[in-house]
Amino acid sequence: MSNRTELEKLGEFGLIEHLTKDFKNEQPNTVKGVGDDAAVIDCGEKYTLITTDMLVEGVHFNLMYTPLKHLGYKAVVVNLSDIYAMNGDATQITVSIALSNRFSVEAVEEIYKGIKKACELYKVDLIGGDTTSCHSGLIISITAVGEVNKNEVVYRSGANDNDLIVVSGDLGGAYMGLQVLEREKEVYKNNPNMQPELEGYDYILERQLKPEARKDVVHFLKEMGIKPTSMIDISDGLASELLHLSKACGLGLSIYDEKLPVDQETFNTAREFNLTASIAALNGGEDYELLFTIKQSDFEKIKDNKHFTIIGHINDKNSAATIVERNGTVQELKAQGFNHFKA
Amino acid sequence: MSNRTELEKLGEFGLIEHLTKDFKNEQPNTVKGVGDDAAVIDCGEKYTLITTDMLVEGVHFNLMYTPLKHLGYKAVVVNLSDIYAMNGDATQITVSIALSNRFSVEAVEEIYKGIKKACELYKVDLIGGDTTSCHSGLIISITAVGEVNKNEVVYRSGANDNDLIVVSGDLGGAYMGLQVLEREKEVYKNNPNMQPELEGYDYILERQLKPEARKDVVHFLKEMGIKPTSMIDISDGLASELLHLSKACGLGLSIYDEKLPVDQETFNTAREFNLTASIAALNGGEDYELLFTIKQSDFEKIKDNKHFTIIGHINDKNSAATIVERNGTVQELKAQGFNHFKA
Repeated sequence: MSNRTELEKLGEFGLIEHLTKDFKNEQPNTVKGVGDDAAVIDCGEKYTLITTDMLVEGVHFNLMYTPLKHLGYKAVVVNLSDIYAMNGDATQITVSIALSNRFSVEAVEEIYKGIKKACELYKVDLIGGDTTSCHSGLIISITAVGEVNKNEVVYRSGANDNDLIVVSGDLGGAYMGLQVLEREKEVYKNNPNMQPELEGYDYILERQLKPEARKDVVHFLKEMGIKPTSMIDISDGLASELLHLSKACGLGLSIYDEKLPVDQETFNTAREFNLTASIAALNGGEDYELLFTIKQSDFEKIKDNKHFTIIGHINDKNSAATIVERNGTVQELKAQGFNHFKA
Repeated sequence: MSNRTELEKLGEFGLIEHLTKDFKNEQPNTVKGVGDDAAVIDCGEKYTLITTDMLVEGVHFNLMYTPLKHLGYKAVVVNLSDIYAMNGDATQITVSIALSNRFSVEAVEEIYKGIKKACELYKVDLIGGDTTSCHSGLIISITAVGEVNKNEVVYRSGANDNDLIVVSGDLGGAYMGLQVLEREKEVYKNNPNMQPELEGYDYILERQLKPEARKDVVHFLKEMGIKPTSMIDISDGLASELLHLSKACGLGLSIYDEKLPVDQETFNTAREFNLTASIAALNGGEDYELLFTIKQSDFEKIKDNKHFTIIGHINDKNSAATIVERNGTVQELKAQGFNHFKA
């Protein structure tokens, strides 16, 4: 071919958008196709939710410090997170694995132990899959299936002007955990007799290696009588997800740096690495918390709940997505999310 | 780890069985999990069907002779085939692709052109997916979603003693097409100035490079008023699929070599390669025809239909799965299906 455009030029989201833009949905029961956390199919009584994610060795995980069991667990969790982000409940998964003959049956058993643990905890059934060989590395592709009552589904696109922006849990921990693991990997590579120093980093290491999906948040919201107006899970970093919401809704938004929820361990580790914790929270990714918007009238219901933090609000369609810094200056939000295709 | 069992020792089916045997289905709407062509989920009015397949460069396809557009088309078709094998209709797919930076945007566009063509022909919607980089090669993981009326679903396990065994279309063509492509690849490697000789092999090359899934068979069967008692698609070769049926039903079976439907081009090419066409039909794989059983009372409805061939019958539970050779001798069927994990 005479023209050659490098993949990195478009990036992951640009590439998906480019490749799928000419596809038309023709099936009468396709409610929502490409472009949200999960696809939505009308099955009569309820909506069925479908989402899929592929994890590639050397791109999404490093086996030098990722236990195989944790890897299996995390591979399930990142998919379930997308189902919960639709305000639904996950019910089934399929698991496909490609692996080179560098791996033994015992190694794959470890991965499946982690998958089983996640299935048990989140009450999802393993209903199918595929195992195949490949020339190098390990690739895990999981599809999660869920369901949601038709009047309860939440898209990325439903927010309105003045809605409050809320996040669950705390942010930036998974990213700082990754920094610690990467640092200890380098130490080990230089001197294999050194023991890695991982003490005192328990919380952020767990955030990185064995994250949880916020099934409980979907439950809490129902209990509080709140239906979010829009929702997305935080897999690529808060800034990137806020831009997705802003684009899907066609509205601007403002968040406040001082409101970002950060755990003390994340804060301390960021300082140790000469980073501000906000940078980790905004651009770190892999926290698998939920980001959502609620009507102002729901403020009283949520304001004292320890699981949630209000970090800003939606603005009208003529404004941008901005962050108000601690010194009061206003900056436009930029996604520094990871571009897998960049060398 | 002290114990190391090589993957090839278990093979693909053994490995899946081994890894999933301790998983229990807990969701009330999981009707059928691992172990059939597709999983079955109860969604109220109908059953939802889910199946997934992963295609790996160098294992399932060779880009030296596989056009990227055909690859995209075939990757969809092999998944749809599993939905039709449940007597259902395919409605949606998700597509995940991992690819190295050896590929350009234009190359991925070609793959998606094939995917789009299959979506249009089979009337399925692309509703989600993932693109990511990987260190080498190309991996395509597709999940297909379908639906079936509850009283129309057909499993592998429903056959009874004396049922007739039927296949659609003809067998062995895809395998002989592969042999021609592999031969021409070797010729080309030895002398890159040689043009490949592919004339006269149109049918079997198309069977290999651009197979179709038998959506029409599901339709024909409904029109004829036949509900198969069991069904499976022929992806790994007739012998392997017959053994799956026999095992799932807990019954023996007999097929007749002289009844196996083989196209003239397949027959001629097999002779050219010093193979018998039956070997290609039994062990070749990738034909994506449907293999099913029907009650004896449906014989009259199907016997003159050019799309179908009756190749044998089910026997009682104390008998084996056997083939009656042209000379009258009876041989036990053996699956020579491809073991991906064998070096």
